[in-house]
Amino acid sequence: MSVRQELYLDDFEVGRKFVTGGVTLTLEGCKAFAADYDPQPFHLDEAAARQSVFGRLAASGWYTAALSMRLMVDSHLHPAGGLVGLGGEMKWPKATYPGDSLHVECEVLEVRVSGSKPDRGIVTMRNQTLNQRGEPVQVAVVKMLVLRRPAA
Amino acid sequence: MSVRQELYLDDFEVGRKFVTGGVTLTLEGCKAFAADYDPQPFHLDEAAARQSVFGRLAASGWYTAALSMRLMVDSHLHPAGGLVGLGGEMKWPKATYPGDSLHVECEVLEVRVSGSKPDRGIVTMRNQTLNQRGEPVQVAVVKMLVLRRPAA
Repeated sequence: MSVRQELYLDDFEVGRKFVTGGVTLTLEGCKAFAADYDPQPFHLDEAAARQSVFGRLAASGWYTAALSMRLMVDSHLHPAGGLVGLGGEMKWPKATYPGDSLHVECEVLEVRVSGSKPDRGIVTMRNQTLNQRGEPVQVAVVKMLVLRRPAA
Repeated sequence: MSVRQELYLDDFEVGRKFVTGGVTLTLEGCKAFAADYDPQPFHLDEAAARQSVFGRLAASGWYTAALSMRLMVDSHLHPAGGLVGLGGEMKWPKATYPGDSLHVECEVLEVRVSGSKPDRGIVTMRNQTLNQRGEPVQVAVVKMLVLRRPAA
């Protein structure tokens, strides 16, 4: 395990980018997640999926979301206090499928110091999950709670 | 397993509500999800969590999201063609913790027939995940793809 630099609010500047490592979806992984959290036929059964809007077995959008989070946690995007999301806007412009390789590209959109709690602030980021063809499969514009650097 | 009625776009009317069953978070469940998808100290380790913004071990927001999806899949909110989300706005106004009991209350906000594909449309719903004190822990306003009832 490498030691990662902790980032404070002061380290985030608009336009800064982070790129995560990648992950390849397996059929077993897609089915196992779906069995626990999204047991719909098009996420579990190839024959049923062919009759669905997806045309073939697709991963749950929440699996894409969970894997995207894992990639971000393992990346250099490492705020002091942790990656704590307050909310945001999510889109899934395309489905993901077993065999797809995903990674996440993150960009800082806005940095704001809290008015009421001056030891912290809000960083707005656009986190795009892309497949192996560079197509966005998830676009999340999220607000994160980030601590300010403590006074020396 | 009970037979559930399939809902078409025409069955969704603004104001219609659906209430899911409930689920109680376990410490083991929270840690297992976090180990796979959100391995941050405050989701995995009680001592580390006490030093974090959460004050004690908290569930990943993505675990709350995944469990909310499962509750919805198991509910009477059963669109023909499945629960297929296109995106939306998510907020996590409060964290969730082991021992919390969650359920989801869903309300139809808007129904719109597709301009380009008249066999389907978009239903906008507000899906609120509430804890045992009735406090919202996740508020999702999402757009779902729903098929229209086929002509007789």
